[in-house]
Amino acid sequence: MTSTLVLLRHGESTWNAENLFTGWVDVPLSEKGVAEAGRGGELLRDAGVLPDVLHTSLLRRAISTANIALDAADRHWIPVRRDWRLNERHYGALQGKNKKQTLDAYGEEQFMLWRRSYDTPPPEIELGSEFSQDTDPRYADLGAELPRTECLKDVVARLLPYWESAIVPDLAAGRTVLVAAHGNSLRAMVKHLDGISDEDIAGLNIPTGIPLRYDLDENFKPVNPGGTYLDPEAAAKAAAAVANQGR
Amino acid sequence: MTSTLVLLRHGESTWNAENLFTGWVDVPLSEKGVAEAGRGGELLRDAGVLPDVLHTSLLRRAISTANIALDAADRHWIPVRRDWRLNERHYGALQGKNKKQTLDAYGEEQFMLWRRSYDTPPPEIELGSEFSQDTDPRYADLGAELPRTECLKDVVARLLPYWESAIVPDLAAGRTVLVAAHGNSLRAMVKHLDGISDEDIAGLNIPTGIPLRYDLDENFKPVNPGGTYLDPEAAAKAAAAVANQGR
Repeated sequence: MTSTLVLLRHGESTWNAENLFTGWVDVPLSEKGVAEAGRGGELLRDAGVLPDVLHTSLLRRAISTANIALDAADRHWIPVRRDWRLNERHYGALQGKNKKQTLDAYGEEQFMLWRRSYDTPPPEIELGSEFSQDTDPRYADLGAELPRTECLKDVVARLLPYWESAIVPDLAAGRTVLVAAHGNSLRAMVKHLDGISDEDIAGLNIPTGIPLRYDLDENFKPVNPGGTYLDPEAAAKAAAAVANQGR
Repeated sequence: MTSTLVLLRHGESTWNAENLFTGWVDVPLSEKGVAEAGRGGELLRDAGVLPDVLHTSLLRRAISTANIALDAADRHWIPVRRDWRLNERHYGALQGKNKKQTLDAYGEEQFMLWRRSYDTPPPEIELGSEFSQDTDPRYADLGAELPRTECLKDVVARLLPYWESAIVPDLAAGRTVLVAAHGNSLRAMVKHLDGISDEDIAGLNIPTGIPLRYDLDENFKPVNPGGTYLDPEAAAKAAAAVANQGR
């Protein structure tokens, strides 16, 4: 038996467009992001990849992307599960800062360490500051688990319990599972699925708005390692563009 | 202990605008309906009535209304439960038919019997016909429960098990519950809540897009019988307009 997992990174947000570090700040999709989400849904529909259940983060840009895509694919009515463990990486004190200015201020080496090293988180965000989430009602139950900054290793650590406890059971039940999430929570998932090393994951970029299908065996390992983009040409182009962010 | 239930009837759909019987046909919101949904969310936000969990039907016009309203109220991240038992009344063979033409063809008495009698359903829809749902994947599990027509009494009968098994437990847990649904599934719910007779329910119209708040006691009975509209003036105007549909 195989099961189908579809990963969908949210479309462009207003802060992507402004080149700001976003993390857990809950910004909306840009107009371009709305269009990307609709296109993602058309790709699902045209490929006949029809999700039976949706998992999203608690962030508007992933939630809206899923809503728009599923509406376009005529699957708006499927069950929904949401969890903070699918959230974007918490970018700590960098949240709200311009990427270009951060690059200029700290230099290429430090910038790339924060962006792409596996285990170096940015400085912690100050509690009570403008872009902190410590009084956000959606995280009220997290207590000490609420991150103040995260590296990708931290994202992997908080994502995997959700993979095991919530996503795998849906796959095991034979459902086609759509996960609508973020650059880094999806990189964490792909790292686990494809067994990518701590070093090699740095080079992996997942493009926005293009569904990535994994066919999984009975151990929930990919039959198609690396997955299959529903629009491979657009994916290749977009991945190259993401790699150049902040330049 | 009291709990809070908020009922929200979807905004205008494209078929409302065209004066067609809709029932289970899955039409989208009109532009006006989208605006109504946003206004509904602003009313929730401004009143500080913040849902902790959403229940919707399986129909796009209720799902979109909830998505738009919750986004406007900054509550897009709450858990979602969906069920066919919250669907609009199935309008049988009238689905897709023009209300005015139906009125002219069958006369006032028959028309009002189908629209407002408690226990007279329209003729059954033909299986396999354009506006039937017998091959719709979202209802694949219903089997013999899939309706081919419904009167309001039928809606009450299929709604109440969901009220007891899904909504009451959320209320009992102290959650503020938003139900985004339809004219007749919400009339069925209000009939139960307020103990309205089979005769008197005919005169009750719930306006679109205006949240209706019920404060419930420990037996899940209203402390404020009839509920409280978050915009009472608009509700009164709209209810009068609904009563004149098809004229």
